[in-house]
Amino acid sequence: MSGSSTTTSSRPIDLAAVLAEIGRRARAAARAIGQASATDKTEALAAMAESLRGATPDILAANAEDVAEARSRGSTAALLDRLRLDEKRVAAIADGIGVVAALPDPVGRVIDAWTRPNGMRIERVRVPLGVVGVIYESRPNVTADAGVLCLKAGNAVILRGGSDSFRSSRAIHAALVEGLHSADLPADAIQLVPTRDRAAVGMMLAGLGGAIDVIVPRGGKDLVARVQAEARVPVFAHLDGNCHVYVDAAADLEMAKTVVLNAKMRRTGVCGAAETLLVDRAVAATHLAPLVRMLLDAGCAVRGDAATRAVDPRVTAASEEDWSTEYLDAIIAVKVVNGVGDAIAHVERYGSHHTDAIVTADPAAAERFLAEVDSAIVVHNASTQFADGGEFGFGAEIGIATGRMHARGPVGVEQLTTFKYRIRGSGQTRP
Amino acid sequence: MSGSSTTTSSRPIDLAAVLAEIGRRARAAARAIGQASATDKTEALAAMAESLRGATPDILAANAEDVAEARSRGSTAALLDRLRLDEKRVAAIADGIGVVAALPDPVGRVIDAWTRPNGMRIERVRVPLGVVGVIYESRPNVTADAGVLCLKAGNAVILRGGSDSFRSSRAIHAALVEGLHSADLPADAIQLVPTRDRAAVGMMLAGLGGAIDVIVPRGGKDLVARVQAEARVPVFAHLDGNCHVYVDAAADLEMAKTVVLNAKMRRTGVCGAAETLLVDRAVAATHLAPLVRMLLDAGCAVRGDAATRAVDPRVTAASEEDWSTEYLDAIIAVKVVNGVGDAIAHVERYGSHHTDAIVTADPAAAERFLAEVDSAIVVHNASTQFADGGEFGFGAEIGIATGRMHARGPVGVEQLTTFKYRIRGSGQTRP
Repeated sequence: MSGSSTTTSSRPIDLAAVLAEIGRRARAAARAIGQASATDKTEALAAMAESLRGATPDILAANAEDVAEARSRGSTAALLDRLRLDEKRVAAIADGIGVVAALPDPVGRVIDAWTRPNGMRIERVRVPLGVVGVIYESRPNVTADAGVLCLKAGNAVILRGGSDSFRSSRAIHAALVEGLHSADLPADAIQLVPTRDRAAVGMMLAGLGGAIDVIVPRGGKDLVARVQAEARVPVFAHLDGNCHVYVDAAADLEMAKTVVLNAKMRRTGVCGAAETLLVDRAVAATHLAPLVRMLLDAGCAVRGDAATRAVDPRVTAASEEDWSTEYLDAIIAVKVVNGVGDAIAHVERYGSHHTDAIVTADPAAAERFLAEVDSAIVVHNASTQFADGGEFGFGAEIGIATGRMHARGPVGVEQLTTFKYRIRGSGQTRP
Repeated sequence: MSGSSTTTSSRPIDLAAVLAEIGRRARAAARAIGQASATDKTEALAAMAESLRGATPDILAANAEDVAEARSRGSTAALLDRLRLDEKRVAAIADGIGVVAALPDPVGRVIDAWTRPNGMRIERVRVPLGVVGVIYESRPNVTADAGVLCLKAGNAVILRGGSDSFRSSRAIHAALVEGLHSADLPADAIQLVPTRDRAAVGMMLAGLGGAIDVIVPRGGKDLVARVQAEARVPVFAHLDGNCHVYVDAAADLEMAKTVVLNAKMRRTGVCGAAETLLVDRAVAATHLAPLVRMLLDAGCAVRGDAATRAVDPRVTAASEEDWSTEYLDAIIAVKVVNGVGDAIAHVERYGSHHTDAIVTADPAAAERFLAEVDSAIVVHNASTQFADGGEFGFGAEIGIATGRMHARGPVGVEQLTTFKYRIRGSGQTRP
């Protein structure tokens, strides 16, 4: 199905029927892929990487068509950059598959085990989630990244890529399917929705009649917001990464400068980038000006409260809205607070429960912040930009989740599994 | 609020406003209760048990009113039995609180920890889920059972009991609140919806504007089906417990008889009761008749396929529908299958992913069944009726979940928590 060109032609298709069939195939493939051995999956992943390398000319040709079309529509430079592939980028995608292949297989791992007084042995064992739906925008690499990560966890995956990258995704997908074939795994384990029709997204969010177990959106805020609002199945995602760094009374100034600069400026467009700096009033006299000037000198716009504005004329006034804003840009909001309690209250009021950090040499303040800030990731004396599956040692990730259920924080291969209980007895009956 | 009698009078209340206020209070209480020490929670639980014992006369008086009203409405004997409390039942509720008090506190427990090459220490630590909504029917004991289990896990809980047990639940709830007060924990940590208006259920299922993190329904299939269909927040529940026992070619007949009898007949009304018996054709000649006659002689109606009907004239014909039916009664469907593969296919086609068992002395058949049956609990050589938090050693449970996300199988105190990541560094920045 995925290899056909049905959907770039103008011939109408029955979208609901196509998607229902994709759902049925995914469910059937999930059973097979869930039982596949670690060796088979590793072999398939290696074959996929190989196919992808071999298909580089096809992928680049398809991508050139996507880019030309996007350009003719007047797409932004940022979109064109996300969309554009070259030999190096394709090689990086193939290398990424190698990284996932080398990860330990999570399926079948015994997480917990105990013996009951009656002699029954109970084990909690990792099993795949089932069918994962991935909805993404114009980054064609997600086709491979998400596809292989889901496969590694024993899941079938239904990919719905952005229409801008339709041809590129299709070419990458074809290479993945070749890899599945050569390892005798079902091709339906990684399916690509063969249409640019946006109605397909709504159908996936409704769960395809029970065929989809979880949805993972990869893209901008509009996409994630739509997915969270409409999805009738669980979603692993984050809407905002309004991350904070709190510089406590007991913070070493040099460490605070290093951490704040990295948290804000290393990359401003990532979800773990700091958006608000909170400084304890107790050290505002010594710490605030150096921190603010450092940021300004690094090219970061600073929007501050009255105390912050007083330290440098380049600081503009922060509005109430700034405290809730994820800039994803070289802009930071800065506020002076009355100690760790006030900092925690600010983070809980305005934050997005993603990643928040404290800089302090005071263990009590650190423990309080780590305990009371209700975010997926809480950090003491390190940059918020460590909010990343790779930096956690997960090898690869499909995103960061801020929901409270199941997956929280980086969503890696382990978070794409669930568990079941295995009981082994010798004829036990319940009294 | 909960102590008022507003809602048994005919004075109209603004239900939406009342529930929104309950939601706000729950969210605020969740922050406090989530930070409460294990000692404080244990103290509160002990005080609750004490209050409950002291309030026995009030509770029984309230219950007598509920029972009288239900009787006057012509309620069934089964409902009246579920509803009726006596001194022994109230004492059992108080004892149950003691059991929960004695459980290890899950909050703050480090589940996993590792050190990154850059020296950062990452911990995965249990934290409460937040606010749990419990919707239940006419068992007043759930007010205490669910309330204290949620509290132990550091959650605030909003209880919406059945209208039949409204007065009983209110009296029990008052005792719980007394316990919270005496341990200086916020009374809003356990709130009871102070109205019998069924519209409150719909509001809770919509999540009370983000105030509810998860819904747990306790009750019959109609309630669970409504909750699963309407809920806009995650649900921990199971709709059906269509559990199977498969007697394999290599099953010891005596063990098979013991396990099947217990799985079906120990209690027929529990979700872990077996509803279908599958017998391998290879041993049908020796095993089928003794198993079927044993069941018939124990007072169980048997609905069978042709092979099963042939062994005893008391067996009636099973229809296609029987394979999907959870009888919750002394009825069993029996079918002869062609080995473990066929048994697995039957379970996957007709089962409800709750609890399924194989009886066999063949390790290969057992491992295949345990691996391929995609149920929350899979069992080798033991009764399906072990599907119970207490039997798992969880101390107490709020139900069994068959969803794939977060909680699967018995939902105990640990399943009522989530986790967050705690990173401790010494000034690390991301390269």
